[in-house]
Amino acid sequence: MNAVKVGLLGLGTVGGGTATVMLRNADEIQRRLGRPVEISHVAGLGIADQTILDASKVKLTEDAFEVVTDPEIDIVVELIGGYTLAKELVMKAIENGKHVVTANKALIATHGQEIMQAAMAKGVNVAYEASVAGGIPIIKAVREGLAANQIEWIAGIINGTGNFILTEMRDKGRGFDDVLKEAQQLGYAEADPTFDVEGIDAAHKLTILASLAFGIELQFDKCYTEGISKITTEDVTYAGELGYRIKHLGITRKTDKGIEMRVHPTLIPEKRLIANVDGVMNAVLVYGDAVGPTLYYGAGAGAEPTASAVVADIIDTVRSFDEDADSKVPLMGFKPDAMVDTPILAIEEVETAAYLRMTALDKPGVLAEVSEVFAKHNISIEAVVQHEPAEGVDRVHLVMVTQKDIEKNLDNAIAEVEGFDEIDGKVVRIRLEHLG
Amino acid sequence: MNAVKVGLLGLGTVGGGTATVMLRNADEIQRRLGRPVEISHVAGLGIADQTILDASKVKLTEDAFEVVTDPEIDIVVELIGGYTLAKELVMKAIENGKHVVTANKALIATHGQEIMQAAMAKGVNVAYEASVAGGIPIIKAVREGLAANQIEWIAGIINGTGNFILTEMRDKGRGFDDVLKEAQQLGYAEADPTFDVEGIDAAHKLTILASLAFGIELQFDKCYTEGISKITTEDVTYAGELGYRIKHLGITRKTDKGIEMRVHPTLIPEKRLIANVDGVMNAVLVYGDAVGPTLYYGAGAGAEPTASAVVADIIDTVRSFDEDADSKVPLMGFKPDAMVDTPILAIEEVETAAYLRMTALDKPGVLAEVSEVFAKHNISIEAVVQHEPAEGVDRVHLVMVTQKDIEKNLDNAIAEVEGFDEIDGKVVRIRLEHLG
Repeated sequence: MNAVKVGLLGLGTVGGGTATVMLRNADEIQRRLGRPVEISHVAGLGIADQTILDASKVKLTEDAFEVVTDPEIDIVVELIGGYTLAKELVMKAIENGKHVVTANKALIATHGQEIMQAAMAKGVNVAYEASVAGGIPIIKAVREGLAANQIEWIAGIINGTGNFILTEMRDKGRGFDDVLKEAQQLGYAEADPTFDVEGIDAAHKLTILASLAFGIELQFDKCYTEGISKITTEDVTYAGELGYRIKHLGITRKTDKGIEMRVHPTLIPEKRLIANVDGVMNAVLVYGDAVGPTLYYGAGAGAEPTASAVVADIIDTVRSFDEDADSKVPLMGFKPDAMVDTPILAIEEVETAAYLRMTALDKPGVLAEVSEVFAKHNISIEAVVQHEPAEGVDRVHLVMVTQKDIEKNLDNAIAEVEGFDEIDGKVVRIRLEHLG
Repeated sequence: MNAVKVGLLGLGTVGGGTATVMLRNADEIQRRLGRPVEISHVAGLGIADQTILDASKVKLTEDAFEVVTDPEIDIVVELIGGYTLAKELVMKAIENGKHVVTANKALIATHGQEIMQAAMAKGVNVAYEASVAGGIPIIKAVREGLAANQIEWIAGIINGTGNFILTEMRDKGRGFDDVLKEAQQLGYAEADPTFDVEGIDAAHKLTILASLAFGIELQFDKCYTEGISKITTEDVTYAGELGYRIKHLGITRKTDKGIEMRVHPTLIPEKRLIANVDGVMNAVLVYGDAVGPTLYYGAGAGAEPTASAVVADIIDTVRSFDEDADSKVPLMGFKPDAMVDTPILAIEEVETAAYLRMTALDKPGVLAEVSEVFAKHNISIEAVVQHEPAEGVDRVHLVMVTQKDIEKNLDNAIAEVEGFDEIDGKVVRIRLEHLG
């Protein structure tokens, strides 16, 4: 059979990895697919100087629009990233009847609805396995592998940079800023680390997972997002004393009141498998009503792991060429007319447990006073840690773990405690999930 | 669209779970598939007394051949288990143009070749996700999700009974026979536990994974199989002292000399994620050249977890109804004409590291004598543990960890050591893998 012609937009880290994997594993891919897949047109900046591809066989251009309008191209692989240009290119590719494979989580999370509609109208595929958790085939697992289930919740470590920082803080007692600097030197974190450490990248991915799990529209703007930049080594240590580890999780859950969608630092019991996922690795825990808990672990970023997902999507896309619309796996997992508009809960309405740390004057009665406030708001305290103060210091750390309650109740109790003269500054609050 | 008609063979644990999940999640399945799926004909012993299905809507029979020849049935789901009758029924179903979904690992591992050929000739699908690791979508991950990779190796905890026994032995210091009895009472192990504890069940599953990973024929008879019935609490304890846990692993690996396919107890470093998979849970670690290590975790057995995989296969199968042969995912992952006959290595030719425990007379020079034998055979010793003998006892346990070498070298060294007067009986040998 004729070779499938792929047009590649971007030849940076992931683009280079994709080209490398497609060339190295060309035989293996053909053994699976029954026909060859070739990169035939590539757009990138300074593309003439690239060394991965044989320039005598592949058209090279700095103008990505040449690729998406090239009549020879069957599949456009978008690896440029960002919103504006990427969206324009993807929409133009679809308009020209090209199938699209992308690793762009920001694009899918924010413009996915419009892109999917255009693709369905045109009868082309849009594949985005690489957009969530890199090389882990998590989209395939949720969309196909667990299709028999009502998904109850998903909790994932879906940003490797954040997990690297939290792992180093715990293992070596290092501070956040110190580890962040190293992550930047190692190339794990961008010069502007906001997307990673403030949870925006994770929120993009969680938005996609929530849509696939529950058959709701992509609603990035409704995802509650809290970063890890305020986590201190003290909190990491106290969490350890209590038998927990702090991970930056994306959590989505279906409840009777609506769907939760939230990214925040989270204490989880150290004996849970996902609590032991360290360094830059990602893992996603999916709970289905029939299957129970399942976990998917692997590299969430990097050239070849991401390429692994991109190329798997290319293979799937080739298999979909002649499929009729009814037989295809729906782009977002559910048939378009079966999407629902279950409300996304505001964070105040979500039920969570919490780890609280306050700095209190070391004098009798403070613990009683604080406990009384929580009792008044009907918040149960599950554990308390208070060490003797250091010599010559008149302040102590008071650490409490609450049971699950609606967040606004806890907000009110915390505001009241913060008003006490015996409590210094703000109460540190980190959510806690048992993931049982 | 018309409802898809499913015929169910067997209404035991998994059959009952499948019926329950299909009824409970019928809406969710239809939201994904765009058409309803109905169980319309069921065969089982004492079927008239079953209470899950509405007998006024579903044909019930004790004769499974009625189901596989029923002209109304689109998909036959074989959940009877075993080899002979199951094979006859599956072949008859294919002959009658039915698609087949099965959870039967023994059937696929031993008769898969013949079944797949018949299915391809007839243009029907044979789906078997539930045959390996229950609810974990591992076949989809290896066959599709990681299709861009050259798989280098797979190592899996793929028998929940064995993992439950080893977990209890480690956590509670209990003996093998004691825990096995409990596993039987809990329904985790059969009255005849041979298939589980002697590794035959795991070997069936590993045979399937090896075929999918490397594009080789199913060759169950070439899988090296060793059970866990000889593991003692002493070995569990010594392994712990050395920083390892003992797990019953199925391992398949491609080397320059051939493919390894082996099931045996294995020491693995305790910090590996898979070392922390406890109780009846399963996990499969897959190493691809592009993606690196990925791990898939979940329930490997049980009514609804297995049903989760069976029903996902039904959904996939419905989507394949109108696909042409070229566009389908090949039944064994690779196009039939791209299968290779890479040799399977005999265990003597496989390179492994090992944990060795010998009972030695407590007198000077024994360690030196033993060490000399290993040195003579060019086997490097990586660690040694020897405690002081208990009071009044003149025997000590000498524990050694070797570096990787071809097994027949170690066989020879062990035979020599066992010949020493100062060494009692047999040397205990458990393989060791770093899985790095």
